[in-house]
Amino acid sequence: MSKKNIKIIVSYNGKNYCGWQKQKESLGIQGELEYACKKAFNQKEVELIGSGRTDAGVHALGQVANFLVDTKIPVEKFPEILNNILPKDISVLAAEEVDIDFHSRYSAHRKTYRYYIYPSKIRSPFYKDISYQVKYKLDIDKMKNEIKYLEGRHDFCGFMSSGSSVKTTVREIYRAELYEEGDRIVVELEGNGFLYNMVRIIVGTIVDIGRGRIKESLKVIIQSKDRNRAGHTAPAQGLFLKNVEY
Amino acid sequence: MSKKNIKIIVSYNGKNYCGWQKQKESLGIQGELEYACKKAFNQKEVELIGSGRTDAGVHALGQVANFLVDTKIPVEKFPEILNNILPKDISVLAAEEVDIDFHSRYSAHRKTYRYYIYPSKIRSPFYKDISYQVKYKLDIDKMKNEIKYLEGRHDFCGFMSSGSSVKTTVREIYRAELYEEGDRIVVELEGNGFLYNMVRIIVGTIVDIGRGRIKESLKVIIQSKDRNRAGHTAPAQGLFLKNVEY
Repeated sequence: MSKKNIKIIVSYNGKNYCGWQKQKESLGIQGELEYACKKAFNQKEVELIGSGRTDAGVHALGQVANFLVDTKIPVEKFPEILNNILPKDISVLAAEEVDIDFHSRYSAHRKTYRYYIYPSKIRSPFYKDISYQVKYKLDIDKMKNEIKYLEGRHDFCGFMSSGSSVKTTVREIYRAELYEEGDRIVVELEGNGFLYNMVRIIVGTIVDIGRGRIKESLKVIIQSKDRNRAGHTAPAQGLFLKNVEY
Repeated sequence: MSKKNIKIIVSYNGKNYCGWQKQKESLGIQGELEYACKKAFNQKEVELIGSGRTDAGVHALGQVANFLVDTKIPVEKFPEILNNILPKDISVLAAEEVDIDFHSRYSAHRKTYRYYIYPSKIRSPFYKDISYQVKYKLDIDKMKNEIKYLEGRHDFCGFMSSGSSVKTTVREIYRAELYEEGDRIVVELEGNGFLYNMVRIIVGTIVDIGRGRIKESLKVIIQSKDRNRAGHTAPAQGLFLKNVEY
């Protein structure tokens, strides 16, 4: 029997996890999914390839991963079977068989991230693990205008945390939007790829601009390629990997 | 020094609580708030009067409570001081001094409840404690029409769980609405008062109508005054006490 290549779409609340990747004493989202796959399909080993890692506390609405499996169970049944094994804060939304060459990371060509800001002096019992509470008054119109400077092809080396080795720090952002949704502010970024902590540094910078702590325009900060001129790194809990396109 | 009567507005995530009221081995929301008040204002005893109880797992966006206190701390500082003591899933949104006769329960004359339904075959890692997942296909247009029969003055004795003694089961509903919000369905009910489990039985009935399990109109079910003709009691975790008016 030949192995099938299965693509899954996964949503998770990252609050209780060390991130996507396995750590010494913690399975991580990837480890939880591999455990569920091994158990569900009676496999000795399953290697799950994610579209990319997410850090501790970061969430996903539509993370993508793939794995090889040798089973007669029809793929339509995979989500239900896996969800019965997985913890309740991880959910497989869909599964399909894909070409054997499909690779969640290498084949990805577009990602969308969403970031939730909760602008309030008083904390919310509902948003504490899924939003970034900002206590300062924000100039939302200014933030809406400034965010547009991200669109296009730029060298984002000023918006990267150290600790990753990449061939190039040039990325293209297809869409950068900031809008109000209920009592929160949403930042949505769609691009061909993102550097380590890039979304969180962008959000931190736009918040610093919105509260007047940074006076420079985002346009100038991007051009400077200087991490010191960008703002703080916004916390993990506001960040959601929304979807990955192939 | 004479005691002041303080009205507070409180939001809480009811997931980890036995409900508003203290139980033998658990403080409840009320107990947590009383503990925080005693500590913050250095009082031996504080008796907190809520607008009404909420059951285990039920949430509040704007519960109202009042208490007497003897302190020189200005009332504007109360939310911050109390929130520094309270667990992170309870938050005091506002505080003001009110007339000594103000009583959160007796003075209330209008309450609004909101209920979140998540219509999906696959569970969500984000909604599990704050929505009711319904796996069946729902006729939302029908539900929108049917909910309107609740508006007006009716005897709701068919929409009450046993275990409460009330003088009358007649209540007036000023506004009954059902609408889609993102990927969820919201039911919002505003009325002069609600019987025990009334909102949850109404939601259960409207879901049963929406999925075709109940064929009768809500109009007929209300008129029947028969608990057996109404639907199931929707679970606690979808229910939010939105606000209380005086």
